[in-house]
Amino acid sequence: MAVNQTLYRDGMARLGAAVNIITTTSEEGQHGLTASAVCSVTDTPPTLLVCINRSSRSHDHFVIGGALCVNVLTPDHQAISTVFAGRDEMEVKFSSGEWETLETGAPVLRGATASFDCRITQSMQIGTHSVLFCEVQTVTLGERAGGLIYFDRAYHEVGG
Amino acid sequence: MAVNQTLYRDGMARLGAAVNIITTTSEEGQHGLTASAVCSVTDTPPTLLVCINRSSRSHDHFVIGGALCVNVLTPDHQAISTVFAGRDEMEVKFSSGEWETLETGAPVLRGATASFDCRITQSMQIGTHSVLFCEVQTVTLGERAGGLIYFDRAYHEVGG
Repeated sequence: MAVNQTLYRDGMARLGAAVNIITTTSEEGQHGLTASAVCSVTDTPPTLLVCINRSSRSHDHFVIGGALCVNVLTPDHQAISTVFAGRDEMEVKFSSGEWETLETGAPVLRGATASFDCRITQSMQIGTHSVLFCEVQTVTLGERAGGLIYFDRAYHEVGG
Repeated sequence: MAVNQTLYRDGMARLGAAVNIITTTSEEGQHGLTASAVCSVTDTPPTLLVCINRSSRSHDHFVIGGALCVNVLTPDHQAISTVFAGRDEMEVKFSSGEWETLETGAPVLRGATASFDCRITQSMQIGTHSVLFCEVQTVTLGERAGGLIYFDRAYHEVGG
């Protein structure tokens, strides 16, 4: 039998993870959210995965658009991380930060320490979430500015 | 077309991740390796995933055994992390640390900040790697000792 959710969440709070803004562009415009459930899968071919709650209002736009960009945040990005974790309209969210596009058209955050512009190649439904497998088309590297880590339910800084 | 592997790896070096020792017990004994490709999927039901290179000598033992434990390391665990990332025989590896077992029989590291004892429910092959989806049976919480993060190809510490 599975463990109870509270204990599971308390355990997961001990697993530090990088904070990212995941974006896409659909016919209805730009979408984005803050997520830490991003993981490298393989470099042959370069593939990462992102887990997104299916109840998120952006979820279907990712799936329909078939592309996304993972923007890896630096310690200077706490404010924009909080904006993209919140409930503002997408236009309001994207008024934070400067955005450009690369190969797929998904918004790329200027100043991210790394951005992975990806095509979604497969998805899997597990419980409440979709796991999106993404082939990486382009990577941009920003300055070596350290990383923003979410751990013990708070932001932390590494490197830089 | 996918990005080249070197640039992909340089980008992934900017994505900080917790360091874990992933273990299992098979008929041939205990197996374990150090891995940072661990990610929460959903808490309904409590599920995480682990990506493991299929060329790893432990890979098949995880798949056959159908169970694993994710032991989340603290900043004090750099030495044992390096041992489990190396090429020693498994008996030599497990002579580092103190180990016990919980529900599945996979080795649980005493002193880990959290341990997730899991049954593997599904797996997927993506390029060189398997993605193992794991339902969490038991979680043990250790001391609040901070987290060990791998970022920019080096160990870092958060919290604690």
